[in-house]
Amino acid sequence: MMPPTSQPDAIHDLRASWSALSVDERVRAFERLPRDAAAAFFQELSSHEQAELVLAMPEGERYLWLRLLAPDDAADLLQQVEPEQRQELLHLLDQTTQKEVSALLAYKEDEAGGLMSPRFARVRPDMTVEEAIAYLRRQSRHLETIYYVYVLDSQQRLLGVVSFRELLSAPAGRPISSIMHEDVVAVPESLDQEAVAQLFRQHGFLALPVVDDQGRVQGIVTSDDIVDVLQEEATEDIQKIGGMEALGTPYLRTPLFEMVKKRGGWLTFLFFGGTLTATAMGYFEQELSRAVVLALFLPLIIASGGNAGAQATTLVIRAMALSEVHMSDWWRVVRKEFVSGLALGCLLALVAIVWVIVWELVLGLYGEHFLRVGLSVALSLVGVVTWGTLAGSTLPFVLRKLGLDPASASAPFVATLVDVVGVVIYFSVARLVLSGTLL
Amino acid sequence: MMPPTSQPDAIHDLRASWSALSVDERVRAFERLPRDAAAAFFQELSSHEQAELVLAMPEGERYLWLRLLAPDDAADLLQQVEPEQRQELLHLLDQTTQKEVSALLAYKEDEAGGLMSPRFARVRPDMTVEEAIAYLRRQSRHLETIYYVYVLDSQQRLLGVVSFRELLSAPAGRPISSIMHEDVVAVPESLDQEAVAQLFRQHGFLALPVVDDQGRVQGIVTSDDIVDVLQEEATEDIQKIGGMEALGTPYLRTPLFEMVKKRGGWLTFLFFGGTLTATAMGYFEQELSRAVVLALFLPLIIASGGNAGAQATTLVIRAMALSEVHMSDWWRVVRKEFVSGLALGCLLALVAIVWVIVWELVLGLYGEHFLRVGLSVALSLVGVVTWGTLAGSTLPFVLRKLGLDPASASAPFVATLVDVVGVVIYFSVARLVLSGTLL
Repeated sequence: MMPPTSQPDAIHDLRASWSALSVDERVRAFERLPRDAAAAFFQELSSHEQAELVLAMPEGERYLWLRLLAPDDAADLLQQVEPEQRQELLHLLDQTTQKEVSALLAYKEDEAGGLMSPRFARVRPDMTVEEAIAYLRRQSRHLETIYYVYVLDSQQRLLGVVSFRELLSAPAGRPISSIMHEDVVAVPESLDQEAVAQLFRQHGFLALPVVDDQGRVQGIVTSDDIVDVLQEEATEDIQKIGGMEALGTPYLRTPLFEMVKKRGGWLTFLFFGGTLTATAMGYFEQELSRAVVLALFLPLIIASGGNAGAQATTLVIRAMALSEVHMSDWWRVVRKEFVSGLALGCLLALVAIVWVIVWELVLGLYGEHFLRVGLSVALSLVGVVTWGTLAGSTLPFVLRKLGLDPASASAPFVATLVDVVGVVIYFSVARLVLSGTLL
Repeated sequence: MMPPTSQPDAIHDLRASWSALSVDERVRAFERLPRDAAAAFFQELSSHEQAELVLAMPEGERYLWLRLLAPDDAADLLQQVEPEQRQELLHLLDQTTQKEVSALLAYKEDEAGGLMSPRFARVRPDMTVEEAIAYLRRQSRHLETIYYVYVLDSQQRLLGVVSFRELLSAPAGRPISSIMHEDVVAVPESLDQEAVAQLFRQHGFLALPVVDDQGRVQGIVTSDDIVDVLQEEATEDIQKIGGMEALGTPYLRTPLFEMVKKRGGWLTFLFFGGTLTATAMGYFEQELSRAVVLALFLPLIIASGGNAGAQATTLVIRAMALSEVHMSDWWRVVRKEFVSGLALGCLLALVAIVWVIVWELVLGLYGEHFLRVGLSVALSLVGVVTWGTLAGSTLPFVLRKLGLDPASASAPFVATLVDVVGVVIYFSVARLVLSGTLL
């Protein structure tokens, strides 16, 4: 990898307008760039954009761009195209890279093997420090990073690791085996990328070796790859929390139909959830027709429960994603949320009572029983907010227990759950408080 | 930085139970670990946890742990303690580190200067490749990373950069100035950490130099620091999207009162938003008392608008955070969301009409005018969902324009906005469709 250098203005301009251009416009804009700027810009693009661009180019030019990419990036690009075109593009690479890329294509994109680069620095344990440095100097053109140097036996099995810095400061004649660290953290090739990212996050590593089930090193994952993984995973979670399927593509590049499909499914599901609320209200039609004033506060009360639930579920989903909260913590979380919910419910109840009294005194909106109406609202808020908080904090645990993604316990999903129960709580409280007066 | 090595089982056990332990229990558990395991574990902890632990230790032991930390990590720890203790702990460091850490403490935690390490690899332009390598070998013990080597003049101003790999493969006698890259991407020391992270994400850098306003290099930021920044920023956004202030501390370690405060503020604000809905409903009390059946569908309709709004705002907030969408894209976004909202509204309208007809035929719930009721519901859904989508996609732009954080356009905030208008849309449609029959 080249050191980061700034690019000429042409790139800045292109970057700013890029997302608005059609593929053909992109190819033309791209071909107007000076060669080195184009190369730098090409490497910045997502693999999806690179694939689009390469396929839109004249066939004779394609290899020029493909050969700019490191094997892991080339493999990512090839994942983006149809199988028949994949073979064709693969053959444009030089022989060594072709072999490396084919091996990488066997991995799923979202596991350690799919993230790794096969070009890592390796030495034998019986080399001296001086020999290893000389060997790495000759190899260094072909390596992704020389930050860590891996010590392998003749079967490519991992024996140890030494940082290049340690290598440089060690006495020249010492054998590598005497300066290497033997208990190396290595990740299995099929480990999920989210788990790999957690390892990087926890330990602050710059690179980790990836091994197959025989302990043979297949490649390395570097922390710049992890930066992308973390962004992707956070984006997925955020979109799920917003109550939809994760898009998987940048917003402006997602076709409209695709987007409506990913949002419509959840909206329809939530709509059916909402019909339960309508059904629950059917049971209280009599109360409603006798005291229409009750209906006025209904949206306010169920919304408060939904809001409290959205807060709780968001907190728990994120804490789980960061491994701050584990399944075994569920009881601690539920206790904490119960107390929080109760406190928040009481806070809102107080606000509500003051609000009803003030408005009655100012505008006389709620009739002679305004104090009892206010009391119904306040007591319901305590119940609904506590329930919302409990439901919101429990649902991610339930989903994970069922083997589903906790992030599907989205804010809208929790709000829908809370609405049904909120209706029942509100009308039940109102029956008690208002019986003999309004009801 | 040492290469990553695996730790004994004792650490695994401690890591699993850590979050449940009190500070005193942590100190005791920590002191039972073998010395090297304790050192590895200490470096994994967050600066907040490190600070707690160090302060809970006997004074005579503190320096042992503080001196394990690189200057940027030591500075992070010191940021976590009260000013009077900060001086005391600072004096436990060795003289060189004390100076470095003091310099770092002058930066805000969330800007480039606050992320950087002052221990980077530097050479002079007139050194030969061989001299530079020999010089770096002597220095390497004291460096954070030797991945990139920065070329500085006598005033410490940045002249160029060369990767260590390039240095190794260059002819021994060439001067550095002839192999260095001159147009280096450097970040100003006060650049916000989110902007720094975007640079890393876009370009896949492993390290970037930080310069003061004279162009003098102050340190480097490495991509492992960025991994933490990205997690932090995503957590903040997710918590704001959930409708609360960002906690800033891990969930289980956040004191209850602190948490209730950060959630209660927004809940109360949203409650007052909700009272607008109650007020809006007051204007339709007459319609409500004549056709109570209308009330049954109200929560369903406004919830659908809120859900559609939550989807739209979440998508736009995240796309902005990833720089996929800029302020100048607002009109494209609004157009796209208008069409999506209309499509989603029509989808739900269809589902609703079928649902009302089926339930009427099965249970006879909605009286003789069920078709008109169904039509009111369906038409309202088109309006409310389109409005929700538009409001949800516009609000983040409005907030950013006002200089506020777009992520504050949380799902609950948008839902509250949508509720008020939803009530008005629903009753207005019902007046039109049902006038002469139910109304």
